[in-house]
Amino acid sequence: MHASGVIVEYNPFHNGHQYHLQQSKRKSNADCMIAIMSGPFLQRGEPAIVDKWHRTRAALQGGADLVLELPYIYAVEHSDYFSQGAVRTLAEMGVDSICFGSEDGNIQSFIDADQYLSSHQPIYDQALRTFLNEGYAFPEASRLAFQQIGFPQDGIDLSQPNNILGLSYVKQMLTYHKRVEPLTIQRTSSNYHDETIDSRIASATSIRKEMKTEGLSLRVKEALPSSTVDQLREYKTRTSIWHGWEHYYPFLHYKILTMTCEELREIHGVDEGLEHRLQRTVKRAASFEEFMKALKTKRYTWTRLQRTLVHILIGTTKQQARQLLLDTKPAYARVLGMNTTGRNYLKQQKKDMDIPLVTQPQQLDHPMLDLEERASISYYSVLNADSRIERMDREYKAPIIL
Amino acid sequence: MHASGVIVEYNPFHNGHQYHLQQSKRKSNADCMIAIMSGPFLQRGEPAIVDKWHRTRAALQGGADLVLELPYIYAVEHSDYFSQGAVRTLAEMGVDSICFGSEDGNIQSFIDADQYLSSHQPIYDQALRTFLNEGYAFPEASRLAFQQIGFPQDGIDLSQPNNILGLSYVKQMLTYHKRVEPLTIQRTSSNYHDETIDSRIASATSIRKEMKTEGLSLRVKEALPSSTVDQLREYKTRTSIWHGWEHYYPFLHYKILTMTCEELREIHGVDEGLEHRLQRTVKRAASFEEFMKALKTKRYTWTRLQRTLVHILIGTTKQQARQLLLDTKPAYARVLGMNTTGRNYLKQQKKDMDIPLVTQPQQLDHPMLDLEERASISYYSVLNADSRIERMDREYKAPIIL
Repeated sequence: MHASGVIVEYNPFHNGHQYHLQQSKRKSNADCMIAIMSGPFLQRGEPAIVDKWHRTRAALQGGADLVLELPYIYAVEHSDYFSQGAVRTLAEMGVDSICFGSEDGNIQSFIDADQYLSSHQPIYDQALRTFLNEGYAFPEASRLAFQQIGFPQDGIDLSQPNNILGLSYVKQMLTYHKRVEPLTIQRTSSNYHDETIDSRIASATSIRKEMKTEGLSLRVKEALPSSTVDQLREYKTRTSIWHGWEHYYPFLHYKILTMTCEELREIHGVDEGLEHRLQRTVKRAASFEEFMKALKTKRYTWTRLQRTLVHILIGTTKQQARQLLLDTKPAYARVLGMNTTGRNYLKQQKKDMDIPLVTQPQQLDHPMLDLEERASISYYSVLNADSRIERMDREYKAPIIL
Repeated sequence: MHASGVIVEYNPFHNGHQYHLQQSKRKSNADCMIAIMSGPFLQRGEPAIVDKWHRTRAALQGGADLVLELPYIYAVEHSDYFSQGAVRTLAEMGVDSICFGSEDGNIQSFIDADQYLSSHQPIYDQALRTFLNEGYAFPEASRLAFQQIGFPQDGIDLSQPNNILGLSYVKQMLTYHKRVEPLTIQRTSSNYHDETIDSRIASATSIRKEMKTEGLSLRVKEALPSSTVDQLREYKTRTSIWHGWEHYYPFLHYKILTMTCEELREIHGVDEGLEHRLQRTVKRAASFEEFMKALKTKRYTWTRLQRTLVHILIGTTKQQARQLLLDTKPAYARVLGMNTTGRNYLKQQKKDMDIPLVTQPQQLDHPMLDLEERASISYYSVLNADSRIERMDREYKAPIIL
């Protein structure tokens, strides 16, 4: 059996994701499609609207054969660590290829870009450092650094976050996992950040935005497979919410103001005196949105701040993050769900794996899993007590088997 | 001008408290009645039902001339530290006497008890230690130790928490503040712990219990001065709640489970492996009451556990508590409110005071005030954002002047 991997968040799983899975399967000629998915918190530093289990079920019903969880410490990180965590785990799972969506749809553009960057790495790094020191936020500093090294104008557009991620995947594969072939398929319309739904293929951002005010409206339902609609509905019936940052604001507020500046400074992402700004700002802000608007500066991007706030909520220290992120090998691969194909693939692959396969977190004693538990506890904190207990119990049970 | 002190919680200020103030004024012959009152959290380890400001206003309208705040670190402590904080501050305020309520109403009984205890202190201490080591909770161990040293059967009843407190006050005065005369007045009916209201003089416990289910019922209103009824009504209109432990349970749950065992162990009151029991128990408990019931053992009294939970909520470490509690002198006296009499007394007394008089916390830089701020933040965390901001703003404003 051959497997191919996709790196995903499924927040929520929509028609575009289903198309991506179908096309990736066709392109890779794989028997088994493995999705590695962020858990409770996502790359942009946001809570997922529904828990990993409801997203996993939708993914399995939409074409994934095996769903793994990308540990939170990789999931809530910039593209380099995010890709590292995801690509390395998929490589350990023995995939032949990893297939990502791009506007371009041509893998050679990414390979060329990676080669150009590799051969200009020292100049790029220096330029990046200079721009960061001048107070530019990372995306802008990075764009300027690309310009400085004369990155070809007709190459891939590196102002697009999805292209930066794609390039990051390719770099991981070409540098560390030459056995894994990078593949890309062309995205059908809809930018990652599009805010309105205008077809059956809509961005997750636009879908979430519509859901926030309109619930499971006709437009939302048109953009989602019916299994996702069922999962979203079920989660809300069960817990009464779809998670958003505003739910967490009372906890975040309480946490930031009951920590000392010294404690805040130890948290992953709290640098350059941000602790004072956090405490000063949170006192006056009546909502998460108000808080973020008051917090944001040119230097701190929205995404970077949100990631830091996730780390504060969970209480992840710089020391913990450093230790876990510097490991060159994934600590384990955690299975969230599978169908028969996924199960057969796992059976075949298990004996060749160099890292433990975890189907229930209590099977392994590792600091990464302790942190995962805290991430889950933080994520479910906003639920009523009964749902909270029920959802935390779910964390220790067997994967979903379809 | 002469002043007398009372040591209070006013949760809420009721007819019995008003009677206590009147009688104390008469007995002490004082011009100015100074009440030192617990702030957001109380001696039994509970949040006050309404904030200190609404309780202060009711106290001023009910006969107090000057209201001071007993810092949280003393307020949420067993009788020795509680008395130490309160008596020392009142002594610094220059009171001639401190008058407390007792069933007995005869100060000589307390003085005799103190003398008997002083002369048997080493045997008492040893007996107490033995019983504690045998696993008895403090109140029971203490009762057995009194028995062991042959404490007279016809002396004051030391199984009554209020008598233990009274004795503690007397001991503080006789040992460290000989200039301050201990006085007691007889309580009119109603035990401290009575759970039902059966007259105009009812216990605060019974009043809170009735309020919880019946709101400001006729019976509640009969047991309270009308100014207290107004203050309770206003607080609820403003913030929508009367505080109780259940409001804090989501925060406590989140806090306990996102701290490591090592961090929990550093918290004031978390001893003898309690950290493991806390984490294990909180996971399964759907409410504060369920949590407490599962947590309680013979060794840990309800009160001791609740105090520890307050320290966890606020994040007070053993080190902070030790430093502050070992200070032999109060760090400051904080004024919450006063009438003209109180103001005149302050004017007269100010120049003779050895400790800073604080009318707004920003006037002084002291670790005690940092901790007070965290206590307030924790207390107000359960309010909606607008009330939370408004109430925290109040903390930095001038005292109530009636």
